[in-house]
Amino acid sequence: MQMFRQMVDVHTSKRLEMVDITRLVEEAVESSNLKEGLVNIYSRHSTSAVVINENESGLKEDFLVALDKLVPTGAGYLHDRIDHNADSHIRGFLVGGSQTVPFQEGRLMLGTWQSIFFVELDGPRHRTLTVTVTGQ
Amino acid sequence: MQMFRQMVDVHTSKRLEMVDITRLVEEAVESSNLKEGLVNIYSRHSTSAVVINENESGLKEDFLVALDKLVPTGAGYLHDRIDHNADSHIRGFLVGGSQTVPFQEGRLMLGTWQSIFFVELDGPRHRTLTVTVTGQ
Amino acid sequence: MQMFRQMVDVHTSKRLEMVDITRLVEEAVESSNLKEGLVNIYSRHSTSAVVINENESGLKEDFLVALDKLVPTGAGYLHDRIDHNADSHIRGFLVGGSQTVPFQEGRLMLGTWQSIFFVELDGPRHRTLTVTVTGQ
Repeated sequence: MQMFRQMVDVHTSKRLEMVDITRLVEEAVESSNLKEGLVNIYSRHSTSAVVINENESGLKEDFLVALDKLVPTGAGYLHDRIDHNADSHIRGFLVGGSQTVPFQEGRLMLGTWQSIFFVELDGPRHRTLTVTVTGQ
Repeated sequence: MQMFRQMVDVHTSKRLEMVDITRLVEEAVESSNLKEGLVNIYSRHSTSAVVINENESGLKEDFLVALDKLVPTGAGYLHDRIDHNADSHIRGFLVGGSQTVPFQEGRLMLGTWQSIFFVELDGPRHRTLTVTVTGQ
Repeated sequence: MQMFRQMVDVHTSKRLEMVDITRLVEEAVESSNLKEGLVNIYSRHSTSAVVINENESGLKEDFLVALDKLVPTGAGYLHDRIDHNADSHIRGFLVGGSQTVPFQEGRLMLGTWQSIFFVELDGPRHRTLTVTVTGQ
């Protein structure tokens, strides 16, 4: 088994945003020249998440609305006294900031209705993902 | 380090269901002939999850009821105009569709009160999991 | 690629507690003598979680309060008839019990505002984490 690493930049334009990064992850797997293995996508940011789900415009909005209902903005959080983004941190804490995806013949083994998303929870910002490809 | 991959089929019988897949994952590790490493269990489906917790019948019901309260069915989701399962997607988005588990001497290093579950969120369906074993 | 494994003990002192384990994970990476790879932190316990976020005292309290609101204690759970900790299990189920973190030049590639936490959800207890370092 071998390892290959690539940093991937994502620029977001809203406070809450679902950015489809499937193609960026595929490119990292292609650059590795590895054929079969696992790719780990890791966000270096505490106010973001990485998820896998269907890329349908209504559903992307539904996810963000659901997070807003589960963790309301400005609900008396202690962290808001220091930095007004406790909601962003708590949402990131719940959803999680990395994913590991299998690949075969140099292609991601996603299901038909699966895309990989970077979830911006405190944008707009410039973000960096660490993509690590391991395999043979 | 070496790598071994096996596809695992799971057939569910209800809309919401917790299926214990510990034995199926153990069999994949045994088939790999690897003694020490990590096994990744990945669901190719956006309306499902993979979790690790205690296999107690009341608790399995509690998990599904908790998800239903956190993300109610039919709560005005945009995705329900296209396909009537936005709740299933949002629940999958929150819980997550893969797990990575250590193994040693060819056996899963689960705790005493841990089993691996496939969580069906939009069944009944035929599902496929990608199980990737890496180690030595 | 090579693999190295270390068990890490964590002793908690409250029912709900966020314990910063970043230094313990760094020490496992240093002990491995591997320079570049991924480290997996896995909790063998169903009433705990492992997360990555900012180590700010107010925010740590905010996380625990948010979990308590999302999954209230003693809300008629079936599992409470057997063992009075259904809330702990359901919170662990939602947040998840492992993380995978990249490292380079023998150091964790965490972001500026990221620490690794063991989240105690049913303490005080003695807990064990399985830390698996893979890389080159």
